[in-house]
Amino acid sequence: MTYCVAARLNAGLVFLSDSRTNAGIDQISTFRKAMVYENPGDRCITLLSAGNLSISQAIRETLQTHAMVDPDEEIPLTIWNARSMFDIARVLGSAIREVHRREAKALRDQGVDFNVSMLLGGQVAGEGPRLFQVYSAGNFIEATAETCYFQIGESKYGKPVLDRILTPQTPLDEAVKCLLVSMDSTLKSNLSVGLPLDLVIYEAHSLGNPRILCLDEHNPYFQLVHTTWGPRLREAFDAIDNPRWSADAHDATPLSQAPEKYKALRKITSPSQRVE
Amino acid sequence: MTYCVAARLNAGLVFLSDSRTNAGIDQISTFRKAMVYENPGDRCITLLSAGNLSISQAIRETLQTHAMVDPDEEIPLTIWNARSMFDIARVLGSAIREVHRREAKALRDQGVDFNVSMLLGGQVAGEGPRLFQVYSAGNFIEATAETCYFQIGESKYGKPVLDRILTPQTPLDEAVKCLLVSMDSTLKSNLSVGLPLDLVIYEAHSLGNPRILCLDEHNPYFQLVHTTWGPRLREAFDAIDNPRWSADAHDATPLSQAPEKYKALRKITSPSQRVE
Repeated sequence: MTYCVAARLNAGLVFLSDSRTNAGIDQISTFRKAMVYENPGDRCITLLSAGNLSISQAIRETLQTHAMVDPDEEIPLTIWNARSMFDIARVLGSAIREVHRREAKALRDQGVDFNVSMLLGGQVAGEGPRLFQVYSAGNFIEATAETCYFQIGESKYGKPVLDRILTPQTPLDEAVKCLLVSMDSTLKSNLSVGLPLDLVIYEAHSLGNPRILCLDEHNPYFQLVHTTWGPRLREAFDAIDNPRWSADAHDATPLSQAPEKYKALRKITSPSQRVE
Repeated sequence: MTYCVAARLNAGLVFLSDSRTNAGIDQISTFRKAMVYENPGDRCITLLSAGNLSISQAIRETLQTHAMVDPDEEIPLTIWNARSMFDIARVLGSAIREVHRREAKALRDQGVDFNVSMLLGGQVAGEGPRLFQVYSAGNFIEATAETCYFQIGESKYGKPVLDRILTPQTPLDEAVKCLLVSMDSTLKSNLSVGLPLDLVIYEAHSLGNPRILCLDEHNPYFQLVHTTWGPRLREAFDAIDNPRWSADAHDATPLSQAPEKYKALRKITSPSQRVE
């Protein structure tokens, strides 16, 4: 399993991926799932991938040289000459379809799905930073002001904190912290997601030189998040009052509702008596 | 979708379920998913269910009168005469298999899985409180000191807080708060889980009279949890320092690692140059 998350903020883009792959629970390996494509001053693109490793590796290899013929363009489009992130997402989609054409039938014959999903984000000179989620069919969706982040892989454990914190106004450093908390929750709840983490931080309109960092268990900032978030969450939890009950066991304030409501739930003694 | 969670603590048992069912995203209804079977002084049992509603309703109906023939027992076992929670779990498993025998083939012919999962907990006089997760094949597992809670349905969003808070030593009221926070996170992240909630609180060795409560959006304690948890989480988040960067953009402390590590990630300009 994999967990990758990326956010598009007014201040730029942040990408975070784990590096664990598994083939069954007893075969765990480390593979990097992030890749940066950069031509400083012109474009800076980051790609995160989840799914079948052989497929995502083949797509990344193919993408480097893939040229998509478009009847509206004089020369075939590549990630290096496309003039928008939208067209770069189309090139990626086309590379996925190329790999699908080569691999899908043989995989299907062995009962293996063509399973891959990708996060593609970056900026091309002339437009703002953009972020896409690309599906295994090669189609894609783009992050907006309302939904400014995407997740792929083991996404659910880490979603609540993103929903509560991230907006387009979130500063880059705070978004980094938020993504690391989201990853820390995922690491705690799912063993098939693992260190080291790859973190890419792209400042809007820099068109190059993103911060690219590999965080392992010795990284002091990840250690800070990892050791602080649990106790802080615990403090937040403790700061909420426990429910209090009235003396009458069945008229339990503040939780109680009308008696007929909880009668609807109750079964008493006789198995033939049904009150639902 | 459904979210149900139950915990077995030294102090007793707590059960919480939502009440939303859906047949596709455009057909949402409210059905209660909790049921209490009680013979005060002798036994008190709670059952939560998730999965195909027609199956779980058929199982609950069947369970009320189901008698399991056991060659070791003089009379057939029912939930009302079995002498242990283990045997009651076997009776439930047997009822599930009975419904499977009646329904599974016709469902399969229509492409519908026999999909149901249940949480069964309670106490029978003569032993302590016990909690089981019962699968659609009628087999089951029991909660232990190491893993003192079970979830069924949409479980992932609400798991991190359970992992961080719940132990067998957790008091009942604090466990109620923890399950409500877990539910609140799930409600926020998945629209197919919805109010009202059914809450059952069973005090160890009481053998009856559990607190049974239906919480809707007007319940003051659920409102307290709902309106407090988000801001408290936000405060906990804010209390962690943001990462700080050194002046040198690429030697980013405290996040940086050895340069060769992040070289492994980087692609520069030429599409044919591959350094992974």
